[in-house]
Amino acid sequence: MTAGPVLIEVTRGPVVESWHQGSAAVVRPDGTVVASWGDIEAEILPRSANKPIQAMALVESGAIERFGLGNEHIALACASHSGEPRHVETVRGWLRKVGLSESDLECGTHPPRLQASIEALAREGAHPTAAYNNCSGKHSGFLTTAVQYGEPTAGYIKYDHPVQQRLRAIMTDLCGADADAFRYGIDGCGIPSLATPLSLLARAMASMAEPSQLSNRHAEAATRIRAAINAEPFMMAGTGRFCTRINQALPGVAQIKTGAEGVFCGMLPTLGLGIAIKMWDGAARAAEVAMATLLAHLGVLPADQRDALLHPPVKNVVGLLVGEMRPAKSWLG
Amino acid sequence: MTAGPVLIEVTRGPVVESWHQGSAAVVRPDGTVVASWGDIEAEILPRSANKPIQAMALVESGAIERFGLGNEHIALACASHSGEPRHVETVRGWLRKVGLSESDLECGTHPPRLQASIEALAREGAHPTAAYNNCSGKHSGFLTTAVQYGEPTAGYIKYDHPVQQRLRAIMTDLCGADADAFRYGIDGCGIPSLATPLSLLARAMASMAEPSQLSNRHAEAATRIRAAINAEPFMMAGTGRFCTRINQALPGVAQIKTGAEGVFCGMLPTLGLGIAIKMWDGAARAAEVAMATLLAHLGVLPADQRDALLHPPVKNVVGLLVGEMRPAKSWLG
Repeated sequence: MTAGPVLIEVTRGPVVESWHQGSAAVVRPDGTVVASWGDIEAEILPRSANKPIQAMALVESGAIERFGLGNEHIALACASHSGEPRHVETVRGWLRKVGLSESDLECGTHPPRLQASIEALAREGAHPTAAYNNCSGKHSGFLTTAVQYGEPTAGYIKYDHPVQQRLRAIMTDLCGADADAFRYGIDGCGIPSLATPLSLLARAMASMAEPSQLSNRHAEAATRIRAAINAEPFMMAGTGRFCTRINQALPGVAQIKTGAEGVFCGMLPTLGLGIAIKMWDGAARAAEVAMATLLAHLGVLPADQRDALLHPPVKNVVGLLVGEMRPAKSWLG
Repeated sequence: MTAGPVLIEVTRGPVVESWHQGSAAVVRPDGTVVASWGDIEAEILPRSANKPIQAMALVESGAIERFGLGNEHIALACASHSGEPRHVETVRGWLRKVGLSESDLECGTHPPRLQASIEALAREGAHPTAAYNNCSGKHSGFLTTAVQYGEPTAGYIKYDHPVQQRLRAIMTDLCGADADAFRYGIDGCGIPSLATPLSLLARAMASMAEPSQLSNRHAEAATRIRAAINAEPFMMAGTGRFCTRINQALPGVAQIKTGAEGVFCGMLPTLGLGIAIKMWDGAARAAEVAMATLLAHLGVLPADQRDALLHPPVKNVVGLLVGEMRPAKSWLG
């Protein structure tokens, strides 16, 4: 089993009630490892944390200009959104622009993340549709590239479909290894999630953060995607979400994206670095504090946000402070 | 940081995507450790997993007979229920029987667990009340003992209130150590959760499973509680829940209870054993598979349920099987 040190602790009163092990890599575009904790050569499934990488194919296709798409659509292609009205309506409008509809989405349907959205649907007697799926923006981007290249849209989630082949070609260019040789599992939304060594995932992020060594085509796309993430942070996640908060607070400095099962990725253009984190137990709560800790460690987290993000409170049902999450003293605490 | 081996793996395709470390103890009433994995002397917060122990105070008070309460109420006192209509209505009826109402509950309010219940409330334009709190049965039991002994009901969640003092006295008798000396954190529902060595939590469970060494008063209460858990498994949790499923499937053989942050406890009367499990990352999903694995290891899990409970499927949004959870090969897999 892959090893990694305890990165995050969860306390309740005087007791460390739970703790989370992880691996993390901070890497330069040439693959130089600037800092690492735990095994970073182990393969992980990036899940949604590599959506910014996958959005490269959309931006490079020329479809943004052809269909009059904007930052909000690019950010949605990078997003795991909460299914709030603006997310859903923007996805529906996007699909209309490219001559498609929700019925072309192959991501499936799940209830929106936000309690208020679930209740709003229920009050209307309505049911969530595929546009509510947190991955509906990414899938709209996939469909858009198929339309742009005149490919069949059906089956765009399959490993051998040209849409997925392009994603692997881009990953190969960004991480410096042959992504066609990676094993894969099927993600929650049906697409292949490529088993990627953590260090290479961080390198791909670094390549997007500081793309001067990439082709002009890749470099321009990476720059456009970073700008869109900071310009439309709400589209990246939603109300109160960590990705939205950080991408809003650090324009031009950090572009971060969470993934299921405790993955987190980040681009740090001012430092020319990429970050990849995997909490080995799959805990999203710990991946967030670990990302905040690394951002602070690297000096890009505003001082006035350190306490809230490095020591998120654990509250009970009535809102009483009963504990906290924190970086382990044995790590960067 | 407390150590424990990897007990549970989560796979996706060919990859072990995440894994969970834990400690587990199988103990006799006299404290003899029959089997253990990881550190079992470390203190853990039992959270809701010790509700059956706390229900002893209710049954021993005589209030069951005085107020005409039954198995459904005793099971609710042991429960972390899903806030389904029968749970909520039974709690409301219970409070009326003892001359109180929901406003006397100090557990706070949170939305019901079941999506359908959340939607039903929204359609009615209603909001969850304290009775919907998963701990409302336990709190109704606490209030009932205060009424029974003529104590003030206000503040029954405080460490020094007679209600909480009785719980510590019972824990002391069941685990063989002075529970007044235990540290504590505040639980989600506001009561003290006593920091208990895992081996002693298992011993307390064993004492309830095979209570012949306890006082008659304790022994009769433990026997009554075990019977109520098997008689009203729905009240223990709710639709589709692991606790409901197991307590329904193994009448007289096992009485189990989950707790927050990856805790699980069990009584095995036919074997005269108690079980306590703590997943150190706090993962409930792993604690369930670990409990199923121990029940199988101890020979009490029906063969026709082993596959479903030891290898729960990981499905994607459209319901495709994409992986599984399983006991680690290095443990009991």
